[in-house]
Amino acid sequence: MASGSCRGQYDTFGELKVPNDKYYGAQTVRSTMNFKTGGVTERMPIPVIKAFAILKRGGAEVNQDYGLDPKIANAIMKAADEVAEGKLNDHFPLVVWQTGSGTQTNMNVNEVISNRAIEMLGGELGSKKPVHPNDHVNKSQSSNDTFPTAMHIAAAVEVHEVLLPGLQKLHDALNAKSKEFAQIIKIGRTHTQDAVPLTLGQEFSGYVQQVSYAMARIKAAMPRIYELAAGGPAVGTGLNTRIGFAEKVAAKVAALTGLPFVTAPNKFEALAAHDALVELSGAMNTTACSLMKIANDIRFLGSGPRSGLGELILPENEPGSSIMPGKVNPTQCEAMTMVAAEVMGNHVAVTVGGISFTENCVVERSNKLMNESLMLVTALNPHIGCDKAAKIAKTAHKNGSTLKETAIELGYLTAEQFDEWVKPKDMLGPK
Amino acid sequence: MASGSCRGQYDTFGELKVPNDKYYGAQTVRSTMNFKTGGVTERMPIPVIKAFAILKRGGAEVNQDYGLDPKIANAIMKAADEVAEGKLNDHFPLVVWQTGSGTQTNMNVNEVISNRAIEMLGGELGSKKPVHPNDHVNKSQSSNDTFPTAMHIAAAVEVHEVLLPGLQKLHDALNAKSKEFAQIIKIGRTHTQDAVPLTLGQEFSGYVQQVSYAMARIKAAMPRIYELAAGGPAVGTGLNTRIGFAEKVAAKVAALTGLPFVTAPNKFEALAAHDALVELSGAMNTTACSLMKIANDIRFLGSGPRSGLGELILPENEPGSSIMPGKVNPTQCEAMTMVAAEVMGNHVAVTVGGISFTENCVVERSNKLMNESLMLVTALNPHIGCDKAAKIAKTAHKNGSTLKETAIELGYLTAEQFDEWVKPKDMLGPK
Amino acid sequence: MASGSCRGQYDTFGELKVPNDKYYGAQTVRSTMNFKTGGVTERMPIPVIKAFAILKRGGAEVNQDYGLDPKIANAIMKAADEVAEGKLNDHFPLVVWQTGSGTQTNMNVNEVISNRAIEMLGGELGSKKPVHPNDHVNKSQSSNDTFPTAMHIAAAVEVHEVLLPGLQKLHDALNAKSKEFAQIIKIGRTHTQDAVPLTLGQEFSGYVQQVSYAMARIKAAMPRIYELAAGGPAVGTGLNTRIGFAEKVAAKVAALTGLPFVTAPNKFEALAAHDALVELSGAMNTTACSLMKIANDIRFLGSGPRSGLGELILPENEPGSSIMPGKVNPTQCEAMTMVAAEVMGNHVAVTVGGISFTENCVVERSNKLMNESLMLVTALNPHIGCDKAAKIAKTAHKNGSTLKETAIELGYLTAEQFDEWVKPKDMLGPK
Amino acid sequence: MASGSCRGQYDTFGELKVPNDKYYGAQTVRSTMNFKTGGVTERMPIPVIKAFAILKRGGAEVNQDYGLDPKIANAIMKAADEVAEGKLNDHFPLVVWQTGSGTQTNMNVNEVISNRAIEMLGGELGSKKPVHPNDHVNKSQSSNDTFPTAMHIAAAVEVHEVLLPGLQKLHDALNAKSKEFAQIIKIGRTHTQDAVPLTLGQEFSGYVQQVSYAMARIKAAMPRIYELAAGGPAVGTGLNTRIGFAEKVAAKVAALTGLPFVTAPNKFEALAAHDALVELSGAMNTTACSLMKIANDIRFLGSGPRSGLGELILPENEPGSSIMPGKVNPTQCEAMTMVAAEVMGNHVAVTVGGISFTENCVVERSNKLMNESLMLVTALNPHIGCDKAAKIAKTAHKNGSTLKETAIELGYLTAEQFDEWVKPKDMLGPK
Repeated sequence: MASGSCRGQYDTFGELKVPNDKYYGAQTVRSTMNFKTGGVTERMPIPVIKAFAILKRGGAEVNQDYGLDPKIANAIMKAADEVAEGKLNDHFPLVVWQTGSGTQTNMNVNEVISNRAIEMLGGELGSKKPVHPNDHVNKSQSSNDTFPTAMHIAAAVEVHEVLLPGLQKLHDALNAKSKEFAQIIKIGRTHTQDAVPLTLGQEFSGYVQQVSYAMARIKAAMPRIYELAAGGPAVGTGLNTRIGFAEKVAAKVAALTGLPFVTAPNKFEALAAHDALVELSGAMNTTACSLMKIANDIRFLGSGPRSGLGELILPENEPGSSIMPGKVNPTQCEAMTMVAAEVMGNHVAVTVGGISFTENCVVERSNKLMNESLMLVTALNPHIGCDKAAKIAKTAHKNGSTLKETAIELGYLTAEQFDEWVKPKDMLGPK
Repeated sequence: MASGSCRGQYDTFGELKVPNDKYYGAQTVRSTMNFKTGGVTERMPIPVIKAFAILKRGGAEVNQDYGLDPKIANAIMKAADEVAEGKLNDHFPLVVWQTGSGTQTNMNVNEVISNRAIEMLGGELGSKKPVHPNDHVNKSQSSNDTFPTAMHIAAAVEVHEVLLPGLQKLHDALNAKSKEFAQIIKIGRTHTQDAVPLTLGQEFSGYVQQVSYAMARIKAAMPRIYELAAGGPAVGTGLNTRIGFAEKVAAKVAALTGLPFVTAPNKFEALAAHDALVELSGAMNTTACSLMKIANDIRFLGSGPRSGLGELILPENEPGSSIMPGKVNPTQCEAMTMVAAEVMGNHVAVTVGGISFTENCVVERSNKLMNESLMLVTALNPHIGCDKAAKIAKTAHKNGSTLKETAIELGYLTAEQFDEWVKPKDMLGPK
Repeated sequence: MASGSCRGQYDTFGELKVPNDKYYGAQTVRSTMNFKTGGVTERMPIPVIKAFAILKRGGAEVNQDYGLDPKIANAIMKAADEVAEGKLNDHFPLVVWQTGSGTQTNMNVNEVISNRAIEMLGGELGSKKPVHPNDHVNKSQSSNDTFPTAMHIAAAVEVHEVLLPGLQKLHDALNAKSKEFAQIIKIGRTHTQDAVPLTLGQEFSGYVQQVSYAMARIKAAMPRIYELAAGGPAVGTGLNTRIGFAEKVAAKVAALTGLPFVTAPNKFEALAAHDALVELSGAMNTTACSLMKIANDIRFLGSGPRSGLGELILPENEPGSSIMPGKVNPTQCEAMTMVAAEVMGNHVAVTVGGISFTENCVVERSNKLMNESLMLVTALNPHIGCDKAAKIAKTAHKNGSTLKETAIELGYLTAEQFDEWVKPKDMLGPK
Repeated sequence: MASGSCRGQYDTFGELKVPNDKYYGAQTVRSTMNFKTGGVTERMPIPVIKAFAILKRGGAEVNQDYGLDPKIANAIMKAADEVAEGKLNDHFPLVVWQTGSGTQTNMNVNEVISNRAIEMLGGELGSKKPVHPNDHVNKSQSSNDTFPTAMHIAAAVEVHEVLLPGLQKLHDALNAKSKEFAQIIKIGRTHTQDAVPLTLGQEFSGYVQQVSYAMARIKAAMPRIYELAAGGPAVGTGLNTRIGFAEKVAAKVAALTGLPFVTAPNKFEALAAHDALVELSGAMNTTACSLMKIANDIRFLGSGPRSGLGELILPENEPGSSIMPGKVNPTQCEAMTMVAAEVMGNHVAVTVGGISFTENCVVERSNKLMNESLMLVTALNPHIGCDKAAKIAKTAHKNGSTLKETAIELGYLTAEQFDEWVKPKDMLGPK
């Protein structure tokens, strides 16, 4: 890859300059121009990018089964693997505050994989040849199904690699303490007031149970996270995919991650709703409640050293004050309560977000209007490619003309071809 | 029951006047004097009262197995049944804004059952004879274990009698519509913008799936709701209960409700945490998200009648405006969105509430302090009764003396008896 | 008023039976049939009903100034006063889970005031003569402007009669304690750990300041609560009102309540947004945070009596336990934390509710569609009355015909009258 | 500054290796070892670091007035200016999930300024000479007062530099549209249903008003943000500061920022509560509601292009789909709704956070315990320096001995000096 200067890349809106040392293309650059909110700390999280790469790799395998040129498919797989391994993290500059469907991040991934694959095959960056970001990398896919899929993959991987192991470790540590404290008899309290005795080990066994249940709750939410929307573009019908694509791509993702992903039984729900993520967030919210209780209890048990409850002696990890010499504080507990508060707040953001996605799939009043829709042009993608199809739609919109007359005028197809290729009734599912 | 005047009833704080036509006693009246926030609309919900009654009935059965006088046990059972059937709803005047443990509502239930049982047995209301609210109705129980138990019973019963049947009905109605609309081809939308076709039946099938998953989510939260804290007074140790009481009382409640209740495996968690209710609230929050999306979609599909999307024609249920004649509005959808918003808000209240119960079971620093605790007096309940035990504790607190010397001074027991009955080591579980 | 049987009352949907001992009419009954969610505890709060009555009374005064028959106006005023005084509370059976605009409660108020006024004037209940619920009680008003107005009046009255006096009382009590404790030197704590000394009076002065600021925050939100939407029916334009009505009715409400209400400077914002109530809820949320901190601090200061911090001795208000004799708990603090959690949850419900009112005032695409709108019929109200206007709209909708041809066919007016009375350009504001 | 290798730096816990090209010291390094949650995207926000630098600069000026060596004071000022200008951003690696008081970030700032000042004066990095991080940079300060101060400064600066200008720009753009659309007559809608006419300009004037009120709400919350806790270490008493320090440092910060900061009238509230930030968050929550309503309205007005409301034509900014050619989406509206959801979620996190800070300033039971407190050692800071004072406290804690006997044993002072310097009664305020 050359560096130090720029190349021109174009999307359907025109040409834009792209730094030569970046694999992304015009749509990525355009997004950075249109969406400036948030900086480097509010970029699309890397786990989502990696999930996308796993999906793109699986998609290429299945597309090859259905006839995609193996040379192209293989290059896509290799490039996607590099993204999944984190080798190309610097090529994903977009922030999360972008289009609601995540189209721009999907295209960012498509562009990076396409250009890296082109490079591997000796082609010219930005030429879209021989590997086109839409026609090849995004084949049988849309943002509306891939973004929910990537969110589910990312959530499941993080749950299994970070959240559950962390909770298990905490569980084991508390369990060890519970056993260590089995013989220490104490006065218990209710309402902060002196009550009747119990052992410190009994007390800690309650915390152990809470963490144990937290893991059970997270796991109980996973079955619906394992369901993938992939195979259901663009409004869930499976338009422009093949029968069996959805099931096969879920199986590939399952094989690549070692997690039991399956295709969602109803793609309309899988695209238009985000309930499964709200549900998982709810399980995390309950977990945050548990951890906050444990942390608060422990710091009160450890209050002192001379004029508090003084039940537990907290480890001295660092100087506790900038002015009070020798002070030691329950800082690990405090950090845990702050994380818990953040999880609770995020849960509300997710809840509000979950109910803001009403725009998807709202259908509309009549056959007449349906037949006027410019988006019927989507059916032409497999025949004339995404770029020409876009030209037709934009010209028809500008001139107020129909897709058919515009397509013929532009010389892209014949009237007979249009009638054969664009049949709403045939657009309701995969072929 | 006489009416029109008052009788005197006493608790450990003294005598209070109780209306003659009410079964409750002094502690209930005292609570109405101390807690005036909220009025008739903020009373403890009847489903919680009924759940308490089921628990008290089951408790009486098990206590009889362990030796409680069958005459007393039977009267408690009958009185509890009347409460469970809703016959005595007017006798529960307390508001929810009371003590954090719900002790006052537990005592309200104990007092009503005790007095009604006394009446059945021909005794004098307020005499606590032959059925004592604490020593008999509350036998083997404390507020700290019965209130969580009652909340779990009430939640499970409401879920099974109201929530799940309601969701099933909605599911079936949407499913019928989905089939009815199977042949209507439409333009779908994404981002509120025209996209590609689908059938209206496909669209509705997504809603059907959402409601189906809502039921699955509610059910996934139930296993931890079915776990009951009963048998774990007062800080979870099972003090003053018998071995096997916890398991048997859960089995009785299961038999009485037809729901698979079991005893909680760890009573310390079951008393001190309320995670299971936060979890259920989370499932309801996700359900609220689903229903808000469905309601919002439908009202936009039904916008019009002449200048909106006009896809669906909403039923005309009532006049829609006080000024615009003939107007019809999607009012059922609107009511659903309002309920959904309330559920989401309640979820946050439950989350905050879940983390505010840190006071329970915080244990404390030394054997010395434990041996000074006045609450060791609890071990005397089975031997001298709750009222005399309270007298000992309050006198010792007032005089700064020990329990032992006070008890002997009051002539309630001998030094030998005290030493035999009050052993912290023996207070860590049921006998 | 006769009792024991029913009378027939009709709305534009037909006749319904109304109990003879109730003043409400058909629309209220119809709402109870359509909206069954929630029972007696979830009725529209009485403060909202009283606020409506104040508004109706003020409206009648202003309408009289603009020509309403003084006999009718006076009867409305007297009936409204009875509602405002709480004499007719039993006549408002509707639940809050109804239409999003609150039309049914507005009509409930209109019906009760109309029938009570008819009764005062010796007329027949349900006859709508001589006092019509829409044409007279609701004159110059719509639900879209009166409901927001009533919410603002109710909120302001409750703030001034309940919330601020309660906070002032708390402030004064804490302030007295702060002074009483001025000489008690203590060790302060940070992070629950021993820190440096302060006086208990200094500590309490922080609480005093928090409550003082809570009052300041509530007051800072009031200016936008004092702005009333009244005078802006039906989408904010002031259609069917008179120039000056909005200002005068706000002045009347101000005089009736003694609070500085003014007319909202922009009625479109005042109807379509509920930001002022979200803002007030935010101030209450901050207050809840303050009170929860104070309550939590105090119960930890009061932990003990023998093995806690034992700094404060909490008053013994009631028996604290059903099993631990003589136990005393910080129950007032606990009740406060529960109320605080509820306020925080309500705040989220209000926030979600605030963003769900997107349906209001969304405008639409073309003159053509506007001229087809059936709601232009609203302009006929002052000329032929609400009931005939409704007949025209419903007939036109059913037949797919225009308002004009339908109105002429029904014999309600001439073509010339229609053209003179229905001019969209004249419907953009009061006359 | 040398690079490529490490220097040793010590805190009271021992020596740690610090990269030679970083100005921070041992406490910063220790925090990175103890707190690993969150990575580079969850570091303490730069605006908080800059606010700290402004405070440290102002503090140095005032300390010089009270006698701090001008050479040291000037070096601190220059170093602090470099931090405030963003020149040393790479030297602040700590994450937000650390101790609840922010002590570690306060020390990070102290260490960076100290070392940079030492470098300017030709000293050796890490030597703490001639500019000590605690004794000089943190002079008259503690984390408990500086962190709340820095949060207030950062919030106020961001409000004035980012939030209010952004809202003003939005206000002006909507206002221009409102005037442009003044003559376009439309049908308004209520409940998504056709209602009566208004102009598109009237509709937009409602949005203008909402944004105008949003600015008013933000401004109404600022007076309590302008109040600074600085001058109230360590629990609010002003221990180890001088009379007048608080007022002067607030004036310096006001001069440096151009914003009307003042000293908080009650430092106990200012340290222990965070209500002012909850309040500001509430104003932002209301603003988020307003913006979400506006964004949602506009995207529904812009639905289409052929089968929606089609009232507004949204700008074509970028390709809208990866599969549907030529699609254009209301992406700016969508990004705004996502930001709004995040703000609402953050508000809940802030609310929960606001109520979790109960640990501060909880005072405790008796003079006896107070006299035992090891933190009385803080009074020795001005006499023997922070490092020796820490040695005394840690040794006393380890040996269970008193501060006095330990201090004498260590040879740091005489019995007479101890009695003169450590008087709890003199520690209740500045001198």
